[in-house]
Amino acid sequence: MTVERNYDREFVRTFFTSPTAVEGEDDSAKMLESAAGLRGMQAPDVWVPDNEDATAPSMREEGVENIISVVGEHGDEFPGEIHPRIVWHRDDPTTRHTGFEHMMAIADPEDGAGEQIDGFVVPEVGDLDDWKKADEFLTIVETEHGLPEGSLSMSVIVESAAAEIGLNRLREEVGKPSNNLERLFLLVDGEVDYTKDMRAMTPTGGLPEWQTLRHNTSRGASAAGLVAVDGPYDDIRDVAGYRERMRENRAMGMTGIWSLTPGQVATANTAPLPPEEGSWLLEAGGESVELDRVDGREVYHGDAVGLTETADGFELTVDGRTETLDADELRERLVGMTEYVPSLDDVVDSMEEFEAAKEAGKGAIAMTRAATLEIDGVTVEISTDRMWDEATYQAAQTPILLFQDVYEHRQDQHAELADTYGEDVVERAAEVGN
Amino acid sequence: MTVERNYDREFVRTFFTSPTAVEGEDDSAKMLESAAGLRGMQAPDVWVPDNEDATAPSMREEGVENIISVVGEHGDEFPGEIHPRIVWHRDDPTTRHTGFEHMMAIADPEDGAGEQIDGFVVPEVGDLDDWKKADEFLTIVETEHGLPEGSLSMSVIVESAAAEIGLNRLREEVGKPSNNLERLFLLVDGEVDYTKDMRAMTPTGGLPEWQTLRHNTSRGASAAGLVAVDGPYDDIRDVAGYRERMRENRAMGMTGIWSLTPGQVATANTAPLPPEEGSWLLEAGGESVELDRVDGREVYHGDAVGLTETADGFELTVDGRTETLDADELRERLVGMTEYVPSLDDVVDSMEEFEAAKEAGKGAIAMTRAATLEIDGVTVEISTDRMWDEATYQAAQTPILLFQDVYEHRQDQHAELADTYGEDVVERAAEVGN
Amino acid sequence: MTVERNYDREFVRTFFTSPTAVEGEDDSAKMLESAAGLRGMQAPDVWVPDNEDATAPSMREEGVENIISVVGEHGDEFPGEIHPRIVWHRDDPTTRHTGFEHMMAIADPEDGAGEQIDGFVVPEVGDLDDWKKADEFLTIVETEHGLPEGSLSMSVIVESAAAEIGLNRLREEVGKPSNNLERLFLLVDGEVDYTKDMRAMTPTGGLPEWQTLRHNTSRGASAAGLVAVDGPYDDIRDVAGYRERMRENRAMGMTGIWSLTPGQVATANTAPLPPEEGSWLLEAGGESVELDRVDGREVYHGDAVGLTETADGFELTVDGRTETLDADELRERLVGMTEYVPSLDDVVDSMEEFEAAKEAGKGAIAMTRAATLEIDGVTVEISTDRMWDEATYQAAQTPILLFQDVYEHRQDQHAELADTYGEDVVERAAEVGN
Repeated sequence: MTVERNYDREFVRTFFTSPTAVEGEDDSAKMLESAAGLRGMQAPDVWVPDNEDATAPSMREEGVENIISVVGEHGDEFPGEIHPRIVWHRDDPTTRHTGFEHMMAIADPEDGAGEQIDGFVVPEVGDLDDWKKADEFLTIVETEHGLPEGSLSMSVIVESAAAEIGLNRLREEVGKPSNNLERLFLLVDGEVDYTKDMRAMTPTGGLPEWQTLRHNTSRGASAAGLVAVDGPYDDIRDVAGYRERMRENRAMGMTGIWSLTPGQVATANTAPLPPEEGSWLLEAGGESVELDRVDGREVYHGDAVGLTETADGFELTVDGRTETLDADELRERLVGMTEYVPSLDDVVDSMEEFEAAKEAGKGAIAMTRAATLEIDGVTVEISTDRMWDEATYQAAQTPILLFQDVYEHRQDQHAELADTYGEDVVERAAEVGN
Repeated sequence: MTVERNYDREFVRTFFTSPTAVEGEDDSAKMLESAAGLRGMQAPDVWVPDNEDATAPSMREEGVENIISVVGEHGDEFPGEIHPRIVWHRDDPTTRHTGFEHMMAIADPEDGAGEQIDGFVVPEVGDLDDWKKADEFLTIVETEHGLPEGSLSMSVIVESAAAEIGLNRLREEVGKPSNNLERLFLLVDGEVDYTKDMRAMTPTGGLPEWQTLRHNTSRGASAAGLVAVDGPYDDIRDVAGYRERMRENRAMGMTGIWSLTPGQVATANTAPLPPEEGSWLLEAGGESVELDRVDGREVYHGDAVGLTETADGFELTVDGRTETLDADELRERLVGMTEYVPSLDDVVDSMEEFEAAKEAGKGAIAMTRAATLEIDGVTVEISTDRMWDEATYQAAQTPILLFQDVYEHRQDQHAELADTYGEDVVERAAEVGN
Repeated sequence: MTVERNYDREFVRTFFTSPTAVEGEDDSAKMLESAAGLRGMQAPDVWVPDNEDATAPSMREEGVENIISVVGEHGDEFPGEIHPRIVWHRDDPTTRHTGFEHMMAIADPEDGAGEQIDGFVVPEVGDLDDWKKADEFLTIVETEHGLPEGSLSMSVIVESAAAEIGLNRLREEVGKPSNNLERLFLLVDGEVDYTKDMRAMTPTGGLPEWQTLRHNTSRGASAAGLVAVDGPYDDIRDVAGYRERMRENRAMGMTGIWSLTPGQVATANTAPLPPEEGSWLLEAGGESVELDRVDGREVYHGDAVGLTETADGFELTVDGRTETLDADELRERLVGMTEYVPSLDDVVDSMEEFEAAKEAGKGAIAMTRAATLEIDGVTVEISTDRMWDEATYQAAQTPILLFQDVYEHRQDQHAELADTYGEDVVERAAEVGN
């Protein structure tokens, strides 16, 4: 049996938390209300009214009431899914009991926010036996409220070593007769508390990168048909750093990330989609530099590569070393140093081309891409071939599957997508491969 | 039930091995005797009379006698714990039998070193079933000598792939009725033999970094309430390299490291404690440079950043790119490029401030830190805010918990701590959070 | 019981795939035939007639026939092992059934290629229960064809998260009474399909590095007595990149790699063997530079290090910082900056020397290596000591064990080895340690 994803959303780009009750405001539900009004790129795929760390302990009973009233009233029109975070702790039965009661209250279809709730987020879980306790409470909540077993999803924050190790056994525990762990949806890393649980220290108090944790979370999600999401990125002003973190995450298969502000939501909703225009990269001096497109030429402006034409051919200087090359050698050298970042349009083109070839009985075709490079005023025509076979096609498909998941579930983003890519590209991208 | 640490020391900074019997000396126990006399920062948290690799096979029976006599005589005054390493091998029953006999002899309260022994270090373990064999021998040793089950601790050297994989299941095996694995204390990486077991090769014969092994060991320790320790750093003269290795380790939650000399012990006992004075870092050119404090200014002496004041504002050059900025933009840019490394005094201050705020009913407060930067003779006042909430507080607490563990168990280091930090800071650090 | 390797080859350098049937050629078995004729360094340790991804789905029945005829005819003289890859998918029973039928046909000792087949390669496996299905089919194939159980080996392509997680339990599943997983031989990473399974994305569509996957595969192989092999390196012209990838792999204990052409086979057969000549490295400016040997001096030609002799001593400039040193300080500084890459001859010398010392009753000896460095025309004599004990000896032995495995099983490479290293060195390397 194939691993089935049990939920509508196969990809989640954004996990946006809002405090449920803020002290000292006229209206303690203010933050919830403004979040409930978000639409388009500023609205997250998953909205998390956060009755745990974002809300002061003394305000959490009021937070439950606020969730019930705000989500009850506005949840219906909200374009993303709604998954409140309740309190929980692997080491504290009182906290777990409180979390159970909050879930029971919020999920009540009559006095609670009932039908507007897609599921709950459970923080501070330990090993899988602890996850099962939360699962059991959800089963009881469902039964008491007359909901089918498994209809409320459960997402967890992976923020302890025990939870990280548990990821290895998730696939085999899901589906056992004594649990309803098929309700699992998101695996979200929580690096602040994980750092504490691991007793890790850095000189400045900054968080470690925790790359192995992120790999393991992504791998656990892949093995069990779930979705992996990275934790919060605290430095809200550092947009470049946030984008770089997401780039790293996507290369591990972790497509989603926590967002703390509508600005971060907009950045993180956009980042995983292919760019509007393709671009060429030149690798030199240990980094990849994006070339500037000027009148159809791709112009290099850095210092790490130099090129001059001589009577005999060309002198190419890379990282301080100069080679004398003829025209063919130069082309081959530059092909080795360049890479192309395809646009959404390019990806759709390539997929359509491969599909047509496959229909015509071909298993593999060469995709050619040409460019005019300009370095130090010297222009060089290059052209690269890449073989596409079924495996290449399927690997290239991931960004398109993500796009289609967004297109299907986020009607409120259609206008912005059309503005960015053009209607035609959006429609072809929505169809290709189906 | 919370994961409980079963031993006195919650942190171990240093794991110092001494040969138990050296051939060709008048007194084969010479190295043991000089180690037994170490005090203060030169004395390790855990002292390991090493009857395995550090001692020639032909000298190991004599090594057992030497442990009994030297530890028996001087163990009582030794300021750290004492954990002899005995012989063991997952693939060799004869070696395991010898290890058993050595433990029986050493732990004898009448003819052995008995009460001075805190536990044993077992090298070359395989999967958990192999760990259980060593545990069973310890149970028998305890019973024969009239000691309570579990009173001798067991530390293992993780130096095989099987042992690394076993770390995943440690948490669930500890506490099963047929073993006494609650006696586990340290998980120590042994990179030389691990490299051999993995059949890894490098051109120079140097050891690979084995970052994933270290992450997994630290994670296994965290999940099972144990302490993770890194293996030996062979290049004794390379103090900077040793410090850098420890810095990496702490960022993974591995607080301890093997030490081969009293000099390495002193370095490794000091490294995990917060510095005596705080300092500012400026990040540029791909690295963090510590600024020099001169008359209250933080002065940058590198080449990667340049700053000039112009009629219109400022020109800031970073890694070869120049931007024109007004005073506010400059400040914001520099705040983004700087980081502060807090001193012990700073950490204690912040924690006390947060505790006071919490008592006054506040869940989160902003901690402000100001400095006068000087770049190319131009001075700029900057000030950074960092939000502290309960999670920040608890994560910041790790170095203080370590400090307090040292303070409680290492009376012999009090004078040196007071010399470094001042009595007042030491006393406040010993109290904060309690 | 020690982990036993169940197969002849303890090391596999090369895993070379050939399409089994190419469409539109006069002779669809052309590629198989030319592969069957490879000898010496161009012939792989493991040859994989690839009836999966390298062969169009419509050609796979013909592929089976081609394997039977070409391997049946030429397999006997082929110098490497022969392991066809059949079709398989964890999510598709039809594909698995086809894979079973293909194995039955190919392994037939009368109408198939029978005795020439060493085993099969099974792609797209999931968790261990899926591996067991393939194992069970092989057991049936063996029984039907009158072969002993376990006589056909099984290698798997690790290209799903579930398979990666399964590696953790391999050691304990092998040897259970209801399976014949002792037949396992190679664990081969398949990064293209793994990327798809993990839903990972990169801007250019290039493959992520997947270092944690490679570590885990190597570790799983080590724990279960198997051999780890890395996946294909697509950029056939990038020989330097291929070599660098193998260098990284060896530092993780992954000695083998996929090869797509006889040229890659020759590169990958040679790369793990120690070099013909030793060389010195100088570390500066964040990289290691190999020094040029000129008339017995080791000459540095880079810019990161400068040296001048003054009236008082020496001025050494490293990465822009100048220090004034006397002759002894200079020597110590340079010893810290240099490393030696030993040749095969050097490794054999050191091992012989240590063996002689051990026979004379010494547990550890210092190995001295001296050189004359030249920087900016100034020469400096340096000499480094390295302590060798039993553990150093055994870790250093890995490249020699690999050499001996090659020497024993690849008679067809003896002439090339003698050409490279000289007969004398080859013979001593073949004997040392036995």
